[in-house]
Amino acid sequence: MKTSIATVCLSGTLEEKLKASAAAGFDGVEIFEPDFVASSLSPELVASTARDLGLTLDLYQPFRDFEGVGQEKLRQNLRRAAAKFDLMNRLGISTILLCSNVGTAVSADDALAVDQLGRLGDLAESYGVRVAYEALAWGRYVNDYEHAAAIVRAVDHPAIGHCLDSFHILSRGWDPAAIETIPADKIFFVQMADAPGLTMDLLSWSRHHRVFPGEGGFDLADFMGHLLRAGYDGPMSLEIFNDTFRRTDPFRTAVDAMRSLEWLQELACQALERDGREGSRMELSPLPTMVAPVGFNFVEIRADDHRLDQVRTTLHQLGFTDAGNHHSKPVELWSQGGARVIINRGDSTAGSPAVAALGFDVLDPELAAERAGRLLAPPVPRDRGAGDEQLLGVRAPDSSEIFFGRVGRGGVPAWVSEFGGSTEVTTDPLVTRVDHVNLAQSWEYFDAAVLFCTSVLALDPQPSLDVAAPTGLVRSQVMSTADGIVRLVLNLSPTGSADTAQHVAFASTDAIGAARRARERGLAFLPIGENYYEDLDSRFDLKPEFLEEIRELQLMYDRDERGEFLHFYTESLGSVFFEIVERRGGYRGYGATNAPVRLAAQHSRRPIVAAP
Amino acid sequence: MKTSIATVCLSGTLEEKLKASAAAGFDGVEIFEPDFVASSLSPELVASTARDLGLTLDLYQPFRDFEGVGQEKLRQNLRRAAAKFDLMNRLGISTILLCSNVGTAVSADDALAVDQLGRLGDLAESYGVRVAYEALAWGRYVNDYEHAAAIVRAVDHPAIGHCLDSFHILSRGWDPAAIETIPADKIFFVQMADAPGLTMDLLSWSRHHRVFPGEGGFDLADFMGHLLRAGYDGPMSLEIFNDTFRRTDPFRTAVDAMRSLEWLQELACQALERDGREGSRMELSPLPTMVAPVGFNFVEIRADDHRLDQVRTTLHQLGFTDAGNHHSKPVELWSQGGARVIINRGDSTAGSPAVAALGFDVLDPELAAERAGRLLAPPVPRDRGAGDEQLLGVRAPDSSEIFFGRVGRGGVPAWVSEFGGSTEVTTDPLVTRVDHVNLAQSWEYFDAAVLFCTSVLALDPQPSLDVAAPTGLVRSQVMSTADGIVRLVLNLSPTGSADTAQHVAFASTDAIGAARRARERGLAFLPIGENYYEDLDSRFDLKPEFLEEIRELQLMYDRDERGEFLHFYTESLGSVFFEIVERRGGYRGYGATNAPVRLAAQHSRRPIVAAP
Repeated sequence: MKTSIATVCLSGTLEEKLKASAAAGFDGVEIFEPDFVASSLSPELVASTARDLGLTLDLYQPFRDFEGVGQEKLRQNLRRAAAKFDLMNRLGISTILLCSNVGTAVSADDALAVDQLGRLGDLAESYGVRVAYEALAWGRYVNDYEHAAAIVRAVDHPAIGHCLDSFHILSRGWDPAAIETIPADKIFFVQMADAPGLTMDLLSWSRHHRVFPGEGGFDLADFMGHLLRAGYDGPMSLEIFNDTFRRTDPFRTAVDAMRSLEWLQELACQALERDGREGSRMELSPLPTMVAPVGFNFVEIRADDHRLDQVRTTLHQLGFTDAGNHHSKPVELWSQGGARVIINRGDSTAGSPAVAALGFDVLDPELAAERAGRLLAPPVPRDRGAGDEQLLGVRAPDSSEIFFGRVGRGGVPAWVSEFGGSTEVTTDPLVTRVDHVNLAQSWEYFDAAVLFCTSVLALDPQPSLDVAAPTGLVRSQVMSTADGIVRLVLNLSPTGSADTAQHVAFASTDAIGAARRARERGLAFLPIGENYYEDLDSRFDLKPEFLEEIRELQLMYDRDERGEFLHFYTESLGSVFFEIVERRGGYRGYGATNAPVRLAAQHSRRPIVAAP
Repeated sequence: MKTSIATVCLSGTLEEKLKASAAAGFDGVEIFEPDFVASSLSPELVASTARDLGLTLDLYQPFRDFEGVGQEKLRQNLRRAAAKFDLMNRLGISTILLCSNVGTAVSADDALAVDQLGRLGDLAESYGVRVAYEALAWGRYVNDYEHAAAIVRAVDHPAIGHCLDSFHILSRGWDPAAIETIPADKIFFVQMADAPGLTMDLLSWSRHHRVFPGEGGFDLADFMGHLLRAGYDGPMSLEIFNDTFRRTDPFRTAVDAMRSLEWLQELACQALERDGREGSRMELSPLPTMVAPVGFNFVEIRADDHRLDQVRTTLHQLGFTDAGNHHSKPVELWSQGGARVIINRGDSTAGSPAVAALGFDVLDPELAAERAGRLLAPPVPRDRGAGDEQLLGVRAPDSSEIFFGRVGRGGVPAWVSEFGGSTEVTTDPLVTRVDHVNLAQSWEYFDAAVLFCTSVLALDPQPSLDVAAPTGLVRSQVMSTADGIVRLVLNLSPTGSADTAQHVAFASTDAIGAARRARERGLAFLPIGENYYEDLDSRFDLKPEFLEEIRELQLMYDRDERGEFLHFYTESLGSVFFEIVERRGGYRGYGATNAPVRLAAQHSRRPIVAAP
C-alpha cells in the first residue's frame, strides 16, 4: 500500500513536515497550499528536498471555488488554475485537489459545472496535470460524491477524476457502496480520515476534530472494502485537520499517523479475505495476527528505593505476600492470588512511585511483539540473566512499558521462579487478580494512545466519560477486551498531573473482608465523607445494616441493572494509589458516579507543601 | 439586584468556592449537589460557613428525573426527595431546582406529571421548602418553558413554581416573551447563562461551553426585559458549566462572574428605561454611563533598559521622533502624527520588550475609571509629580494596564508637555495614529477579556477567527468601536507565548513611502518569501509594476469588496513587534489571510538558542 500524508496534519515548517513524514516511513506527501505559500523554500527546493528524503509529492491541495460560476469569475479562475498548474510543474506534482464550490458558485445547473470542468481539464492537460474533484460535505451545490461522480462522468475528460475523502462521505451519512461504480482509473486520489461521533456543524467537525484512522468512530473497514472492490491502487493518504496534531511534535505525530495506516492496511486485508479474494492492486502487506491479552501478567511500580516503603506496607495491608527478590535484578515481587506487583527499586532517577510497566498474558508473546513493532511501537530492551525468561516489551505512546508474557502453568508465569521468595500460596486470597489499571495520559498523545490500545493490545474503546474533579474535568476512556478481563482506563487530567489519574485496581471476591483485614493491618484508607453515604442511601434505599457496614469501613458503592460494585481506595503513594473492587453479579462499570467524590477527597488531602 | 452563583461555576473544594464567591461580593450561592456530596463539610458546617462569609444559600440543585414516572419509581423518587428536603432543612435552603425528566419518564401525558408534581408539592410543604421546576432543553417530554408553565399552572400548588434558565430557553430558540405571562410569585429562581453561537448538540453545548453573561451571543438584554416586566425580584444567579472555569483560580473566576452580573444589571436598567419605568422590584443600581474611547492616547512598551535600544532604533526607522524624557520618571516619548509610544525603562524586572499599558482617549476619564471600578477592574496607582496630568488606570484581565486619557487640545494630550523633547512636529508624517493593538491572552481569561473590553472599554466583538501558525491555531478576537477607530485584537496563541501574538499596528497614509523610508534607515523587515507573491498574483491579478513594488519592499497585500490593505512587519523586538498598515477605500479587515504567512516567517526566524 502506498502511504501518503498531507502536510497540514503536522506542525512546524514545510521542511520539518517533510522530514517528519520521511522519518515515519511515508512514501509520499500531499502539499497543503498554505504550508507552501508560507514557506521560504522555492518549488524547486521543495521538490529536491522531498526527493532527497525519498518522498514522492502526490498531491497539491486545495484548489477552491472553481466551477458553476459566472463568466468573469471563470476567466479569473482559469488564470488562477494556470498559475497553480505551472507551479505544480515546478514542484513535479501531477495531481491537484479541487474542492466543490462553497463560495462563488451561482448556479445549481450541473451542465454549467460540467462545461467549466471540461475547460479546466483542457487546461490541465496542456500542463500535463490532472484534477481530482472532491465533493465537500458542505459544498454549495455539490456535497455528495455520487453527485460529483455524475458530473465527472458527464465531463468525460482524461484530466478530470475524483478525490474521495472518507470524512466528506461518512460525515454526511452517504452510503459509500457506490464507490464501486466509479471506474478505478477515475479515482485519482483517496484521503482517509476518521472522526469521533460528534453532533456539530460539519465545517467545525472537519476542521478541528478529525483524527487518524482507528482513533474515531467511522466504519473505515467497510469504506476500504469498497475502495478495493472498485480496484483503486493509488496512494492511501491522510488529511487530518486536528487542533492537537497542529501543536505537537511532528515526528511523533507522523509515527502515530503511520500506525493508523498500518491498521488500515489490516482492515483492507480483512476485507479482501471476506470477499474471498487473494490479492489486490494495492499491494497490501498484512500485519501479524492480533494477539489479544487473556489477563494481566504483572504491574510494575518504579520509584527511588527510599520512597518504596509505603508501597510495600500498603501491599502487605491489602493482603499481598512478599514473594522475594529477583535473583539478579533490583526488583521484588509481591503477589496475592493471580495479582502480581513488581517493585522496581533499580532506577535512582525514578522519583516517586508510579506505574512504569504493565505485563499482559498472551498466548504468543513473539507474535504480539512482532505485530507491535510493525505498528511502530519501539522495543524496550530488558536485561536478563542466563536462564531467565525472556520478556518482550514495547513502549506505549504515554512512555509506559508494555510487556507480553507467556501464560504459565496454572496461570503462574515462568519468570516467577526467578524470585527467591516463599513459594507458599495464600489460602483463600481476597484479591484474585488485577481488575483494571488507570493510566495518566498527556493531551498530546491521547488519541494515539487509543489507537495503540486498539491495534497493539486488542482493547476496544468503551463510551468515554468526563469526570468532574475539583481542578477540572478528567476525560476517561475505558479500553477493554470483549470479555472485560483486561481493562485499561486512559485518563486525561485537566492539570496534566498523574497523582490522581493513575492507579491499580485489584479484583476481590470480598471487598468487605479485604477492607477489614486492611484496617486491622493499619491501612490508611482514603477517607470518604458522611455526605456521600447520605446521598447513597437516598439514591439506592440500602438496608440500614449494610449501609452502616460500608460507612464504617469507608467503602463506596454503585449499582446498575446487572449487579453491584463495592470498592475502596488507599491514600496516594506518590503518583499511584491502589483500589480494591468487588463486582457482584454482572456489574461492568467502574463506579463512575463515585469518581468525583474520590477526586475531591484526594484533592482535599493534597500536600500543602510540595513533596521534596 | 440580589446576586448569586452556582458552586459548579468555580474550581476547588466547596469551602474554596464559598470563599471565592464571598470575596467577589456575591450575595448568595446555589449549592450544586455533587459539590456538597463530595465535601467533607457537614450540612450544618456549610450553613455556618456561608453565614460567616455573609452569603445566603439560595438554591439546592439539581433534583432530577422526578415526574411522569411509574408508581414504583414515584415511591422511590418521593423517598429521595424527602431525604433531600431534610438535608435542605439542615442546610437552611428553602428552594430546590427540579429539572424536567430526561431519563425515567414513561409518559407524555401532562396529567401524570401534574399529579406527581402535586404530591411532590405536598411533601415539600411539609418540610417548609419549595420546588423550582425547570424545562431542560433536552427534557424527554418537557423541554419548553411554556410547556412547564402550563404544567405548573395546572399543579396549582404554592410549593411548586419555576426556575428559568436563559440557556435552556434561548438555546432552543424559544421566544422568551411569554415569561411575562408567568405570575411573578411563581418564578422562584432565575439563572442567567450566555453561550457562544455554536452548532452542536444541546447537552455538550450546555455542559462545556456556557459562558458568563456578556461573553457569548445570547440576547440577554431582551431576556432581562421580560423578567422585569414579569415583576421578578429574586436572585439573579449564574449557573455556568464551562471547562475552563472549572480549571482556573476560583477567586479570579468569581470576579469575572460578578462583572458579568454588573453588566447584566446595566442591561436591566436600559430595559426599564426603554419601558419608560422608573424602578423595579429588583432594586437595580445603575452603572456609571459607558465612556467610549475616541482614539489611542498612547502605547507603552516596557523592558529592561538594556533591551530597549532595538525598540528605539526601530521606531526611528519607522519615522518616529524622540520627543524626550519625562521630567521626573524614567520614561521617554516617541511620536509621529497622532501615534505616541512611551518607552518605560523604569522596571528592571520587566524582561524583554512587551506592551505593558495602553492609553485611550476618552471625553471623561473620571467617569470611565469609576465605571471600570464598578466592573471590578482594580485601579493601577501611578506616581506623578506636582503639576503632572493625572492618568487614571485600571488592570485588564490579561494584567496589562489600561489608562483613560483626556483628549487634549488639537488631539495632543496635555501630559505630552511633561516630556522635554523637541516640540517640533514632523511635517507630513507617514504614520498618523495607532491603527490597532494585538494583545496576547492566556486561555484562562480569554472570555473574561472579551467582557472586559465590551463592558469597560465599549469595544464590541467582531466575528472570531482561527489563524494557522506552525505551532497550532491562534484564536483571534477583534474588539472594536463601531467606527473602527479603536481596535484591539485579543490573541490566544497555542503555546501561550506572547512573542508572535502581541504587536502594535500604526496607520499610515502611504505604506509604500513608509517602507522606503524605513529601508533607507536600515529597518530589519520581517522577510516574506517569493511563494507568497506568486500566490498573491494568482489570486488578485495585480498590475505587474505594483506587484514588483510590493515584492521588492516585502509588503503584504489584501483586498475585500470595500477596499485594499497594504502592510509590513518589523522583526520581533522581544515580546512585541510593529506593523505599518495602510487602508485604501473602506477595507476593514486586518489581512487575516496573510497572518499564517507572517506567523510562519516569525517561526522560521525564532532563535534556536533561547535568549539569555
